[in-house]
Amino acid sequence: MSVKTLADLQTPALLLDRTRLQANIDRMAARAAELGVALRPHLKTPKSVSVARLMQRAGATGFNVSTLKEAEYFHAAGIEDLFYCVPFAPLKAARAAALVADGCNLTLMTDSLDGARAAVAAAEALPDAPPLSFALEIDVDGYRSGTPAGSPDILQAAGLLHDSAATRFAGIMSYAGASYGKTPAEAADLTEAHRQQLAATRALLLEAGLPCSMVSFGSTPAVLHARKLDGISEARCGIYAFQDLFQAGIGACRIEDIAVSVLCSVLSRQPQYNRLVIDAGGLALSKDRSTAGKPFDACYGLVCDADSGEPIDDLVVTTVSQEIGLVSSRSGAPLALERFAVGGLVRVLPNHADMTAAAYESYAVVDGSAAIADIWSRTNRWDP
Amino acid sequence: MSVKTLADLQTPALLLDRTRLQANIDRMAARAAELGVALRPHLKTPKSVSVARLMQRAGATGFNVSTLKEAEYFHAAGIEDLFYCVPFAPLKAARAAALVADGCNLTLMTDSLDGARAAVAAAEALPDAPPLSFALEIDVDGYRSGTPAGSPDILQAAGLLHDSAATRFAGIMSYAGASYGKTPAEAADLTEAHRQQLAATRALLLEAGLPCSMVSFGSTPAVLHARKLDGISEARCGIYAFQDLFQAGIGACRIEDIAVSVLCSVLSRQPQYNRLVIDAGGLALSKDRSTAGKPFDACYGLVCDADSGEPIDDLVVTTVSQEIGLVSSRSGAPLALERFAVGGLVRVLPNHADMTAAAYESYAVVDGSAAIADIWSRTNRWDP
Repeated sequence: MSVKTLADLQTPALLLDRTRLQANIDRMAARAAELGVALRPHLKTPKSVSVARLMQRAGATGFNVSTLKEAEYFHAAGIEDLFYCVPFAPLKAARAAALVADGCNLTLMTDSLDGARAAVAAAEALPDAPPLSFALEIDVDGYRSGTPAGSPDILQAAGLLHDSAATRFAGIMSYAGASYGKTPAEAADLTEAHRQQLAATRALLLEAGLPCSMVSFGSTPAVLHARKLDGISEARCGIYAFQDLFQAGIGACRIEDIAVSVLCSVLSRQPQYNRLVIDAGGLALSKDRSTAGKPFDACYGLVCDADSGEPIDDLVVTTVSQEIGLVSSRSGAPLALERFAVGGLVRVLPNHADMTAAAYESYAVVDGSAAIADIWSRTNRWDP
Repeated sequence: MSVKTLADLQTPALLLDRTRLQANIDRMAARAAELGVALRPHLKTPKSVSVARLMQRAGATGFNVSTLKEAEYFHAAGIEDLFYCVPFAPLKAARAAALVADGCNLTLMTDSLDGARAAVAAAEALPDAPPLSFALEIDVDGYRSGTPAGSPDILQAAGLLHDSAATRFAGIMSYAGASYGKTPAEAADLTEAHRQQLAATRALLLEAGLPCSMVSFGSTPAVLHARKLDGISEARCGIYAFQDLFQAGIGACRIEDIAVSVLCSVLSRQPQYNRLVIDAGGLALSKDRSTAGKPFDACYGLVCDADSGEPIDDLVVTTVSQEIGLVSSRSGAPLALERFAVGGLVRVLPNHADMTAAAYESYAVVDGSAAIADIWSRTNRWDP
């Protein structure tokens, strides 16, 4: 049976609203143009060639990936300027070298002097491999990884990567993880502080006779709220194309901008508990609870009309087991159970789009109605 | 390159310890024998034919599945007595009927009178399909789904399923979700109350002239702590074969019984934050936080030696982003960073085995050393 409408899908299924997606892509492309910075979209959210093509049409020439498997998938589709912006595990050197040898313009990353030493050693151990390019991560906010700005390790790590014939030093990057959960003004201040740290680091590198063509900076809120990004060679953002309830909660988008949702069947109505049972649980929605404890807490997801994608009252998925979700109203108000039939469909908007989408191998593409416009592939996992 | 030791794997990778797995399988088989009840293992945890074969060798003749995709995968391997024990979504009727027509001994489930009506309607709408067998879920503890024990809906739903030529009534089942987090004595009391509710429900059905050959009851703690299971035709348990940190925390196993773990690379050492960076984050470990707030809280997982699988001090994964985990000591004690090298390997034990394993398509089978004994497939997702 060919899939033509939502009713032809087996639930749970991942839906992607093309109109919302395109608007999100255009909005961020316009924002980057306004800042005068190149936008390097992160493909860890969509993990899809079809989405990357829309981003290319909006002006993107390079992309970020979060796994080597993504790099392999996008390279196979002819998308070649890829920044694998997670600290590099030396045991992945042969796979990375195979991509470069095959023509992929791949930049890798390490976040420490130790890491640079391990990267050089791994690259030098490969027979007949092309040089591997590495950026160095600068820790601007203590959020995750990176060498602290101002550390003498930076020049030493960059020097090692520059001097080895097996590696190249591409430049520096940072991730503004601390920009999440900030007000726009706070995020703008933080971004400016990060920008200055990166500019100072670049100046030190150039002064030491080292190259530093890449100055890569990111996070969706940082780029949305930045006052200027002078001296930044590229802005990295990922979640903006799909958005989610967390992003809506912190003001980075509206609920009606969220492009990805999970289509579910109603399995049961439980008047005695004032709730519905749906066939999307922890595996179909993820156990992400990034909205927990916030004023915009949506439990495991916001329940919407299947066809229109509009929220239904204040219904949320309150509880999940592996394959089942329980739906109640957030306020505790009585649920109009007669509006739902066993076997009927609803959509659920996710807390965190990346985590939810990872459970699916494809998107059913919709356009504000029950019609399925297309099926787009995704790549998941880490195996070669 | 053929995979022979842990060092040949690309990280993150899912490891399964065969010795621990076999001991867990044998222990639960012995427990079921002691109770005099047939054990129907739940395959939603392993999702692997190789694991199902070990369970068959330990005496299992029937199994539970949590998706139709699992039923299709196990049926293709010749494993035929399958109970799909999640309330049935009517739009899956054609797929279920195709399995039955192909010789699969498949029992489906619905949990309400509405659900029974929808199931009968969906089955009757299929041209030339074999009858579909349905059990009815009885709600014994308000935990999830099911028709409350004592409700007149039970006889009506069973009657509908029995009377239609398109369906059969297989019997009743319940899930003792509330048995989690109880002391052994409390779990034993609860299990006895559930057992009596199921026995009374069965007596009512027989009195009404309806068949009730299946009286299926489960949850790992309920079966471990039951005083007797007289009148129960089969015990359903899933997590026992793998175990995890939540099960160890509630006393259902020991840490050294946990058979499944994630192999990770160390990406960076951060003396300034007293922590390590590893290449397993929210996708590789899942965002399950079932141990949160418990005395045995392990954050996102317990860090172990890669070769032996033994815990390293009190190291846990404290924070995850999509592809990265941060490792610190639970006590805040200084971490002996010199014991770890960038590119070195560690293992992480999961909070919830089902959620973590779902990110992988196969198991690297180990046996208490760095040698890889075998690679076993798994089935994930819902698509046909």
